[in-house]
Amino acid sequence: MRRITVPLPGRSYEILIGSDLLDALGEHVRGAGVQGKVLGVVQDATVAALYGERVAASLCAAGFEVVPVTVPAGETSKSLSQLGEIYDAFAAGGLDRSSAVVTLGGGVAGDLGGFAAATYMRGIDFVQVPTTLLAQVDASVGGKTGIDLECGKNLVGAFHQPRLVFVALETLASLPDREFRAGMAEVLKYGVISDAAFFNYLESNSQATLDHQPDELATLVARSCEIKAEVVGHDEREAGLRAILNYGHTIGHAVEAVAGYGEYLHGEAIAIGMVAAGWLSQRLGWLNADDAARICRLIAAYGLPVRLEQPLDPAAILAAMRLDKKTRGGTLRFVLARGIGQVEMTPVSEALALEAVASIQPA
Amino acid sequence: MRRITVPLPGRSYEILIGSDLLDALGEHVRGAGVQGKVLGVVQDATVAALYGERVAASLCAAGFEVVPVTVPAGETSKSLSQLGEIYDAFAAGGLDRSSAVVTLGGGVAGDLGGFAAATYMRGIDFVQVPTTLLAQVDASVGGKTGIDLECGKNLVGAFHQPRLVFVALETLASLPDREFRAGMAEVLKYGVISDAAFFNYLESNSQATLDHQPDELATLVARSCEIKAEVVGHDEREAGLRAILNYGHTIGHAVEAVAGYGEYLHGEAIAIGMVAAGWLSQRLGWLNADDAARICRLIAAYGLPVRLEQPLDPAAILAAMRLDKKTRGGTLRFVLARGIGQVEMTPVSEALALEAVASIQPA
Repeated sequence: MRRITVPLPGRSYEILIGSDLLDALGEHVRGAGVQGKVLGVVQDATVAALYGERVAASLCAAGFEVVPVTVPAGETSKSLSQLGEIYDAFAAGGLDRSSAVVTLGGGVAGDLGGFAAATYMRGIDFVQVPTTLLAQVDASVGGKTGIDLECGKNLVGAFHQPRLVFVALETLASLPDREFRAGMAEVLKYGVISDAAFFNYLESNSQATLDHQPDELATLVARSCEIKAEVVGHDEREAGLRAILNYGHTIGHAVEAVAGYGEYLHGEAIAIGMVAAGWLSQRLGWLNADDAARICRLIAAYGLPVRLEQPLDPAAILAAMRLDKKTRGGTLRFVLARGIGQVEMTPVSEALALEAVASIQPA
Repeated sequence: MRRITVPLPGRSYEILIGSDLLDALGEHVRGAGVQGKVLGVVQDATVAALYGERVAASLCAAGFEVVPVTVPAGETSKSLSQLGEIYDAFAAGGLDRSSAVVTLGGGVAGDLGGFAAATYMRGIDFVQVPTTLLAQVDASVGGKTGIDLECGKNLVGAFHQPRLVFVALETLASLPDREFRAGMAEVLKYGVISDAAFFNYLESNSQATLDHQPDELATLVARSCEIKAEVVGHDEREAGLRAILNYGHTIGHAVEAVAGYGEYLHGEAIAIGMVAAGWLSQRLGWLNADDAARICRLIAAYGLPVRLEQPLDPAAILAAMRLDKKTRGGTLRFVLARGIGQVEMTPVSEALALEAVASIQPA
């Protein structure tokens, strides 16, 4: 089992990562200092069917009383009405200030259940059990929780740090391949933005990873969490440095939105966005042609797209990019690579951004 | 204008208190460091009709764009559905991370609007403009925001500190007398729990206060906020010392609940609870008969009840007290007076608590 400490002012927490770990959840929740007796378990229906009983059994064996709340799988569950049902279930189940919430599932369960924990009785403890690769390497660190409004994703939320993140890698066995590969996009991103050695490692281990070799999985989840923790540790409330985590996301988010949510998985859109960012980095003379090509090859090696499947309207992508949170005073800003393992934020003209968009249109 | 600084780790804020202050709101919001252009103003309908236009005009004059959100007056507005309407109005009005929320009204507007501010875009700034005495002396300090669930009050919420609290005392002119007096209960409580000199001051100035003399109002609001800030400053997340603010609330909350919410105003129930707590303090030999009588006389001098209007079932009150948040391992705990200006928390047997309840039944 690997153990990553996420340092925070006032309170740190641990990310535990291992194979064959799920049945030990209860003892580790107890060990993380959760005092209360009653736990609310917010789980998505798909994951609940696979692992809900084992999770409940492990928590009960450690002396907890479990109040399960199962929500439909999918982004539409990140709604105010679903949140209200969770609150009601918590209250009916007797959760009090000493209780904690366990979230079981991918980003939806973590975001929704984490936000419920952040706000029920003005904030109670929570433990994340992420079961998708994306949630394991992204949502495990940073404390972001939230729900969607009809007019936008994640418009409501809170920063709420978990007491423990528990990554039972065996849950990846049930993750669809396409989602696994999409999760890898964020892993590759960590190599590009801050760790050339990790990038090299990822180049050498694509097959072992795609074969779900336990050691490879543990290594890449652990290193991803470490890198994110380093970045977030310097910038808990998202003022500056944290923006480097946005590499590939300026165009990636725009692709996701313009193609229609669901057409590309988040990671697939980010993969294409990373290629575009590499192209821009090369165009500005920041990145040499070899390294730009290495980034493309690595993305392809993990079965991720390096260009759009269908052409998208450049004007629509530009309009979506203008809404990017890094935009300041109407000027687009990109995180671009100075080399593999090193990135920087820089203003980019709309003309140049459009050239980058052209570079990812279907061949 | 009086200026109270509420010290907080990382960030302090000011409470500005004055008569004839409302039209200066805009410049003070600007002065408090609110950077964004768009402000959401969450206001209850009654207060909006009286002061909404002046508030909006003052904010606009200071260069802000105002998105007003008016909610029905009354506790039923502290609901998840009302919160959803506020979020939608914020998004439609273009509030972003740099925007702030101004809450205009009593506790409902402050709790609801403050919680919307705490969670919209994972937390934006807010400025409180409390227009009831209770909100001015209680909700101004402590950072508590929240909404109700059907099964209980304030079950959902967040700690979110305002950037500024702006107390325009002239708004008290439109407050019904009964609500003004109910607000005084919390003011008297501050004297009892921690400031004998303030208690003396309140004894000498009841008529001037009930006549709304501006200087008296400013003094008592300012001193109340100072005392609460001292207590909360030692205990921001409500672990220990903050419990002394609960003086009179153990029986008071139970009276409120058993009589049915609305039968007694919160402050009226607390007044009766303070008399009961005084009785218990005397019964334990902590408080002499003279001081216990002074507390009763002071409460009566401000037109507040010192006993129940109609008899209430002692068993029902006891059951409600068992739900008090100070209860530990089934044992009731009361905040009781060692003298005027000094209190302590202590376990109290149910038999003794029932004697205290008997002491406040109608004569």
